[in-house]
Amino acid sequence: MKEELTKRIVEEVIRRLQQSPHDEACIPIGVSARHCHLKEKDLEFLFGKGYQLTKKADLSQPGQFAANETVIIAGPKGSIERVRVLGPLRKETQVEASQTDAIKLGLKPPIRESGDLEGSSPVTIIGPNGSLFLEKGLIIAQAHIHMSPDQALQFSVADGEYVAVEVGHLIRPIRYERVQIRVSSKYILEMHIDTDEANAGLIVSGQTGKLVKRDAEEVR
Amino acid sequence: MKEELTKRIVEEVIRRLQQSPHDEACIPIGVSARHCHLKEKDLEFLFGKGYQLTKKADLSQPGQFAANETVIIAGPKGSIERVRVLGPLRKETQVEASQTDAIKLGLKPPIRESGDLEGSSPVTIIGPNGSLFLEKGLIIAQAHIHMSPDQALQFSVADGEYVAVEVGHLIRPIRYERVQIRVSSKYILEMHIDTDEANAGLIVSGQTGKLVKRDAEEVR
Repeated sequence: MKEELTKRIVEEVIRRLQQSPHDEACIPIGVSARHCHLKEKDLEFLFGKGYQLTKKADLSQPGQFAANETVIIAGPKGSIERVRVLGPLRKETQVEASQTDAIKLGLKPPIRESGDLEGSSPVTIIGPNGSLFLEKGLIIAQAHIHMSPDQALQFSVADGEYVAVEVGHLIRPIRYERVQIRVSSKYILEMHIDTDEANAGLIVSGQTGKLVKRDAEEVR
Repeated sequence: MKEELTKRIVEEVIRRLQQSPHDEACIPIGVSARHCHLKEKDLEFLFGKGYQLTKKADLSQPGQFAANETVIIAGPKGSIERVRVLGPLRKETQVEASQTDAIKLGLKPPIRESGDLEGSSPVTIIGPNGSLFLEKGLIIAQAHIHMSPDQALQFSVADGEYVAVEVGHLIRPIRYERVQIRVSSKYILEMHIDTDEANAGLIVSGQTGKLVKRDAEEVR
């Protein structure tokens, strides 16, 4: 718990530092490990009738939480245990994994925004009460930045726009060239990348990146 | 075998295309999965007295090969099976893994040039005849580009210099900001990145990246 507290304090300090007017383009980074969102019907199928998720920890975006519950995900080449379920429940069940995970599973998920499941990869989810084969539901998450409408004004960006983000790590500096902006009054400023993107830059949650607007002709 | 042949033809076509004078800064990329180099004494300890590596496939750099032999690598938090041994034998035993692997093993290897093992991470290597605990030997490989002296002249770069490389993938474009140049008359033009770096850009062997010289003040 002490380690968790230290981590939160460090994250909060970094968050406040980045709010300085002298450093307006600095974005705190959160690394998303593989995880699963469930709809009510699938939760009950996997965990039992009437089952309810229990909260392990709040996530940075308001209302979102990591549950104590985990599942196994599987594909034709392998499986991965202890995949965290995130709450609250959603309208559609969705698994987010990295390309490294996808290779291990033997699956080819597309890179997608959360919730955009048309044409996504099939995947098997195994819980204590049963297993589900989903025809679609596995994606690799598109790197994105959550921000409020005020912050979007401040950064001169619009919802859905793509920007670049540079992380000036001394050892393994990297620039992500296609990061999507997501604007909502419910959002707290944070960039979300997956574990492949993080490990390619030796990045851990709480570090910051620099938002770089892309010239119109650069935008793909 | 047919898939392997197709892969090689595609790689060769890409290699020849990149030799075009109109596209001088284009570098073919090779993705290095986790692997192990052994010294003779450790080979014999792991596989048995008098054991010799057997060749599975030639690698792109002349004289280097993937062996049929594999080992298990392990750390305090986990192990990884079927780690390929590369030949020929070296003066020092060395394991190269990704940051994703390192987290699974519970180890903290530094990012290093191949052969630079001072201060590298301890690691356990398990073979059919025994297991070794090395006080040092595990690294994450520094991204690098092999090239001949002629190619170094052509790109205006020197041995040991750091450059950036952009990979203009449509879906997950990325720019590696710190890639080391390695020049030798024995080298064939190729950039080597690890699986984290590759997966962060959805890159597979045979794709190409664009070498970008860094301004003097930019160089870290």
